[in-house]
Amino acid sequence: MRAVDVIRKKRDGGELSPDEIAAFVHAATHGDWPDYQLSALLMAICVRGMTPAETATLTRLMADSGTRIDLSDIPGPKIDKHSTGGVGDKTSLILAPLAAACGVVVPMMSGRGLGHTGGTLDKLESIPGFRVGLGVDEFREALRDVGCAMIGQTADMAPADRKLYALRDVTGTVESIPLITASILSKKLAEGISGLVMDVKCGRGAFMKTREDARALAESLVRVGTANGLKVEVVITAMDAPLGRAVGNALEVVESIETLKGNGPKDLEDLSVLLAAKMVRMAGLAADDSAAEVKVRKALNSGAGLEKLRQIIELQGGDPRVLDDYSRLPDVLHLTRLKANRDGVVTEVGAGAVGVAAMVLGAGRERAEDAVDRAVGVVVRAKPGERVSAGDTVFEVRYRDARKLADALPLLEVAYRLGDTPTHTPPLVLESIT
Amino acid sequence: MRAVDVIRKKRDGGELSPDEIAAFVHAATHGDWPDYQLSALLMAICVRGMTPAETATLTRLMADSGTRIDLSDIPGPKIDKHSTGGVGDKTSLILAPLAAACGVVVPMMSGRGLGHTGGTLDKLESIPGFRVGLGVDEFREALRDVGCAMIGQTADMAPADRKLYALRDVTGTVESIPLITASILSKKLAEGISGLVMDVKCGRGAFMKTREDARALAESLVRVGTANGLKVEVVITAMDAPLGRAVGNALEVVESIETLKGNGPKDLEDLSVLLAAKMVRMAGLAADDSAAEVKVRKALNSGAGLEKLRQIIELQGGDPRVLDDYSRLPDVLHLTRLKANRDGVVTEVGAGAVGVAAMVLGAGRERAEDAVDRAVGVVVRAKPGERVSAGDTVFEVRYRDARKLADALPLLEVAYRLGDTPTHTPPLVLESIT
Repeated sequence: MRAVDVIRKKRDGGELSPDEIAAFVHAATHGDWPDYQLSALLMAICVRGMTPAETATLTRLMADSGTRIDLSDIPGPKIDKHSTGGVGDKTSLILAPLAAACGVVVPMMSGRGLGHTGGTLDKLESIPGFRVGLGVDEFREALRDVGCAMIGQTADMAPADRKLYALRDVTGTVESIPLITASILSKKLAEGISGLVMDVKCGRGAFMKTREDARALAESLVRVGTANGLKVEVVITAMDAPLGRAVGNALEVVESIETLKGNGPKDLEDLSVLLAAKMVRMAGLAADDSAAEVKVRKALNSGAGLEKLRQIIELQGGDPRVLDDYSRLPDVLHLTRLKANRDGVVTEVGAGAVGVAAMVLGAGRERAEDAVDRAVGVVVRAKPGERVSAGDTVFEVRYRDARKLADALPLLEVAYRLGDTPTHTPPLVLESIT
Repeated sequence: MRAVDVIRKKRDGGELSPDEIAAFVHAATHGDWPDYQLSALLMAICVRGMTPAETATLTRLMADSGTRIDLSDIPGPKIDKHSTGGVGDKTSLILAPLAAACGVVVPMMSGRGLGHTGGTLDKLESIPGFRVGLGVDEFREALRDVGCAMIGQTADMAPADRKLYALRDVTGTVESIPLITASILSKKLAEGISGLVMDVKCGRGAFMKTREDARALAESLVRVGTANGLKVEVVITAMDAPLGRAVGNALEVVESIETLKGNGPKDLEDLSVLLAAKMVRMAGLAADDSAAEVKVRKALNSGAGLEKLRQIIELQGGDPRVLDDYSRLPDVLHLTRLKANRDGVVTEVGAGAVGVAAMVLGAGRERAEDAVDRAVGVVVRAKPGERVSAGDTVFEVRYRDARKLADALPLLEVAYRLGDTPTHTPPLVLESIT
């Protein structure tokens, strides 16, 4: 099979056969085609699309391109949660312990942050000693002992996705629902889970800007998951303002712990509980979502969720004393406050602008090879709908480098809007798709 | 300017600015972008298209990517002819001397054959000693002395096209009217000509399979030429059967010489005269096409065209005795004949199949680096509309290697069709677009 014939077929809007898709995935994994042929086909897919059947085949073959973990010897349904990436989204750190405390086995494999959205691994690594790089045997042991482990993808999982993702990033072919679907689900299939709760973010601060795009991705994820024997449920949630108040790795760990102690921001707590409840119900541990939510709230209020997080941290080599002593987390000396210049009601806090500001401070990566500063970040003191007086703090900025601060401040200045009367704030959860 | 932003803009159907196109052409010329970004943009252009303004800018910048020859010191309009490539199309060897004999300055720069259509340079090089690699000074001298030179593009002409053409060939991005237009006209602009007669081939044996595609290319060529100060006229001609009877380099040289002696096949003579007449009229040497045709026929009948070809061959180092002694051309010992198995009328001789058969025998190149056998080829003894009896020769095959013959014969077996009554043969010239 010649690469150029496969490329031409997709260029002209044709449906690729399983053999043609297999040649493409093999080429991405083993280098059979030069990069310029891979990228030409990626662009043709991006513009011409793929049928659900093509996307399902691509996803399966990408999962099969490396090791697929078999967790069938661990009893009970294995449920993971994944998000398309939001600013201040630290729900994984809260819902994984909560769901595990309710009896769900949570084999959570996450990625690192790229661009203005944070990565769960970067947040976890602000806990001194925490190891996200468990081997497969340690991973199994953790799932047996604690019911949850939070680790990074291993190097031998879905290598085709790693290659294609890197190429997509530099060839303008990221924005493709079939390619996004295959990228997310190939890694999830390789994890050996039986069910997945997906949080598809939608809004100005999210990758999916419109409700239509978010819904199309959601439907693709459900369909392609089902075709590959993976139950997928999707919640579409708003990502216009940051979730919770903290944006930045250690700051988000503190907010997560506070949430498990019952002191979290309402939006963060509610979304974490809702997603955990879906995992509990999907695992068959509750008859419906509301019964599941009762269980999850009980685990939250009893402190069982916090206790589970302590076990996870211990088992993965982290210092559990951070739960009671935040000074053990990375910190920076420098703090500045951005203040409101008049009385008013906050009508907008732009998630995108806050996310980029945090990245500029060092909390995130512009390129995959950049280092991350665990301590820096932004705390949103005035969220949409909240009243401020002139001089009240809108953002607290924790920074290390004054030059980076100088780059970040103008972004924050334009990130928020004040009005005279509260405007309608849309609900956080926009839609569920199963 | 980031490559990925330019790529994304075209991916989403946007119109690229001159600066963005300049970045792309500079990158193709100087290697600023890796090949996988060039190919992603080529695919986006292929699928999304380009506006006439974008195509005109791309063409101009590709012409400017290397040396542009200035022929303004040579008096009179400089007119070239170019074809999109047909099987058995040797009109250049006939019309260039005819037009020059009528007083047109013909600075003809051609390419080598690739795939199943032949290249003028390969044909010329079957003449012993003939040099197609004249330097620019020799080229000028030839134009002054003889009024015509037939050479290859120099290495420093349109280097952006050379790079992009090679990538398009392996990334399924050849079939794009804007990219084809820019590739053809960038090289023609760099030649320093003032007018161009284009023969766009249309049909089963041509690159443009449908009349609509051929017309779209023709209109694009005229528009983009005009936008860059180059007068372009296009003739759309049928390419269902080979033009003339000979397919193969030395065989086509013989047929060209015979045509200049007045013994050529009618289709080949007529098309050569028609295209030469357009060049004569475009050069201002005749008031209209029919007055121009009278001049060209006179040059043909008087032997002035043949005499001009003799001068061209002499000036470019070739052996002019080939004009009277075909045994001086490359020849092969082996000849086989494919014969009709019943009486009938030839209803079809597939140009594509005959072209591929000739390539398989060694007359053409599958890859740019392949060597060409000047001697081998196919002669079509029974053209569409001609009657044959069982046992009459349909094809003469001149071959060197019996294994190659074995590969070529099955192609020829299916290349022709016999019927009981003549079918309608469409006219050779389908349309003129100016």
